[in-house]
Amino acid sequence: MNLEQMGQAARDAAYVLADSSTRTKNQALLVMADALEAAAPQILAANEQDLSAARESGIGEAMLDRLMLNPARISAIASDVRNVVSLPDPVGSELDSRVLENGMRLSRRRVPLGVVGVIYEARPNVTIDIAALCLKTGNASILRGGRETFHTNQELVKVIQQALTASQLPAAAVQYISEPGREWVSGLLKLDEYVDMIIPRGGANLHKLCKEQATIPVIIGGFGIGHMFVDDSADLVRAIEVIDNAKTQRPSVCNTIDTLLVHEAAASELLPSLSARMAEKGVELVADTTAFALLKDGPAKVRAAQDGDFDTEWLGLTLGVKLVPNVDAALAHLRRHNASHSDAILTNNMVNAERFINGAPSAAVYVNASTRFTDGAQFGLGAEVAVSTQKLHARGPMGLEELTSYKWIGQADYLVRP
Amino acid sequence: MNLEQMGQAARDAAYVLADSSTRTKNQALLVMADALEAAAPQILAANEQDLSAARESGIGEAMLDRLMLNPARISAIASDVRNVVSLPDPVGSELDSRVLENGMRLSRRRVPLGVVGVIYEARPNVTIDIAALCLKTGNASILRGGRETFHTNQELVKVIQQALTASQLPAAAVQYISEPGREWVSGLLKLDEYVDMIIPRGGANLHKLCKEQATIPVIIGGFGIGHMFVDDSADLVRAIEVIDNAKTQRPSVCNTIDTLLVHEAAASELLPSLSARMAEKGVELVADTTAFALLKDGPAKVRAAQDGDFDTEWLGLTLGVKLVPNVDAALAHLRRHNASHSDAILTNNMVNAERFINGAPSAAVYVNASTRFTDGAQFGLGAEVAVSTQKLHARGPMGLEELTSYKWIGQADYLVRP
Repeated sequence: MNLEQMGQAARDAAYVLADSSTRTKNQALLVMADALEAAAPQILAANEQDLSAARESGIGEAMLDRLMLNPARISAIASDVRNVVSLPDPVGSELDSRVLENGMRLSRRRVPLGVVGVIYEARPNVTIDIAALCLKTGNASILRGGRETFHTNQELVKVIQQALTASQLPAAAVQYISEPGREWVSGLLKLDEYVDMIIPRGGANLHKLCKEQATIPVIIGGFGIGHMFVDDSADLVRAIEVIDNAKTQRPSVCNTIDTLLVHEAAASELLPSLSARMAEKGVELVADTTAFALLKDGPAKVRAAQDGDFDTEWLGLTLGVKLVPNVDAALAHLRRHNASHSDAILTNNMVNAERFINGAPSAAVYVNASTRFTDGAQFGLGAEVAVSTQKLHARGPMGLEELTSYKWIGQADYLVRP
Repeated sequence: MNLEQMGQAARDAAYVLADSSTRTKNQALLVMADALEAAAPQILAANEQDLSAARESGIGEAMLDRLMLNPARISAIASDVRNVVSLPDPVGSELDSRVLENGMRLSRRRVPLGVVGVIYEARPNVTIDIAALCLKTGNASILRGGRETFHTNQELVKVIQQALTASQLPAAAVQYISEPGREWVSGLLKLDEYVDMIIPRGGANLHKLCKEQATIPVIIGGFGIGHMFVDDSADLVRAIEVIDNAKTQRPSVCNTIDTLLVHEAAASELLPSLSARMAEKGVELVADTTAFALLKDGPAKVRAAQDGDFDTEWLGLTLGVKLVPNVDAALAHLRRHNASHSDAILTNNMVNAERFINGAPSAAVYVNASTRFTDGAQFGLGAEVAVSTQKLHARGPMGLEELTSYKWIGQADYLVRP
């Protein structure tokens, strides 16, 4: 099948899904969850092929772990699918309605987007995850995983398609691009006649590629320098706990902080205890001139900040530290240094809190809380499709509703426009 | 100024606008409306330059009329600006809020998009229209009009920027790309570091260009084949009025119908009276084989449909006619023939109505009403930014709310993620 044919098949399947009841979609998801567990031996065998190939290619341990499945992980994936069954189906609900002066009843009804293209990297659970979320919301999906997971994904998609067929739904509701060539990715990104949205799940380069090549709307996300500003009115003892959490609870992810901005008036009290805690947690500090003077005697490791340090997403145990005279200077720093994901203020001053909330250019802004909360599950969305850092369509963690669009419905009694 | 500098200035201005009160923004709009009327002589002189150049280039009368301003049109534009003042400001309202189990108060607050790029063709009123709507919603805008309106737009933007300055708002809140080169358009479409959304207002080619070149989200709209399906249960006398309205009330626009689908069982009764009415209104019919047999004796002009006729947006006094056996066949036709804007069913059968509502792939679906209602003003949105035919962000007529995004706000008491 070429891409055009896949697109056409996905579009046709999307019409069937849009017309399917929540019960039918849930039933297919339950069949899929059971089938995943039943097919565990084949899936693990395929995964072993991918793992050997990956080991031969000298891939790192972290990547191998992302790639690896075992019976427990397959059960966890199946259980995630069953969790999707329990979520409310957003399709069909009305966003709003009104009766116009001319008597027309006008409403907006939530509908599936149609066809969603997803391009992702190593982790095979994404295949099931996205397929399940799209199916729940009545969207057909066209998937393209990384070549490292080729055999695993083939086996997973076989299970999905058998479950669809067994549930009287079209197998083309979930399709997978198996061809290795990069031209298939470029082709998918230009399939605007059939595909309504592209979700890239991967690193900055993948997002850049999609943004540049796609003629289809793309959800860009997952990047941005994270900041925390400690105001002089903050409770500086409890502040240390929040800073620690935002930096070290899971240092490799995108909702950790990269830069700590400290009100000048709080610096001499805060920085010694910060240094002690960071030393304990193995965090290296990268300080601007004035902060460096207060930090240079340790105990935490510290170096003077260079050009570009405050524009770096560390994704590890490093933290920039800079002193600022007030909340406005903190906001000015955020705006110059790509704050777009999650940023926080620690303050007991209501005016400064509100100023920060309104002024921060971030998808998620926190007052007296860790940035680590930016996450679909933490927000109670039940599922996370992606974390958007663009402003169109959806911003921040995206749940099932963000996989839908709406249509306008006007009902009247043979009404004409005067 | 180069594009990079314009982008930076727009971004900075956007921060000021996002921080401005509704009163400040409204005040600037009122100053702008007054200034437009006061500057009428200069604007008309500039417009005369554009008109002479256009006449010399042998442009058609319709285009000349689109280009032309006069004192009445300037007053109308000023009055549109005053109308924007009276609309509610969507910025700052909360979309929803909840308190999570851990005590965090989590809400979504409506915020401006930031910087909006608008590329448009001949009509100079778009310059004011878009500038006013963006200003009201706290967005900075970068405008690029057609070269036919160059002098007029220069004068209009001067008025806008003077009004901004007089209102203590940054002049860069509304900027205009004056350079003639196409590379400035391509450059704007790739200014993703500063621009959050691109709105093309023009023909299919402009939309295609934007879709292909932009690295910024684009709102695609304004196209699609319009269909009306007359079910056999419809009131066939009143149906004629609705068909007539949907075809002839303003034949050149995108929410008119291109194809009439008629239930086979209604054809022998409906088509003679359709032919009579269409003859009266000067509409030529383009009929499939079975419809042609019933229409060939007139009185309306009729020809047999060729390949591609049912994929043609007529934008004039032509109407395709095709017989179908039922509502599902009508929907199958819609899906094959690019229904994406406005489509209608005329029926007294509730089941068929609901089937059509759910099955039509259109941004706006009507039951027993003309498709001509797809319009921001008709829908009571107060203003129309564009009519989107894509499914991301906004679909159908876009009002002020569709010029906004949201941010997540989490407030707590020094809360950390366990």
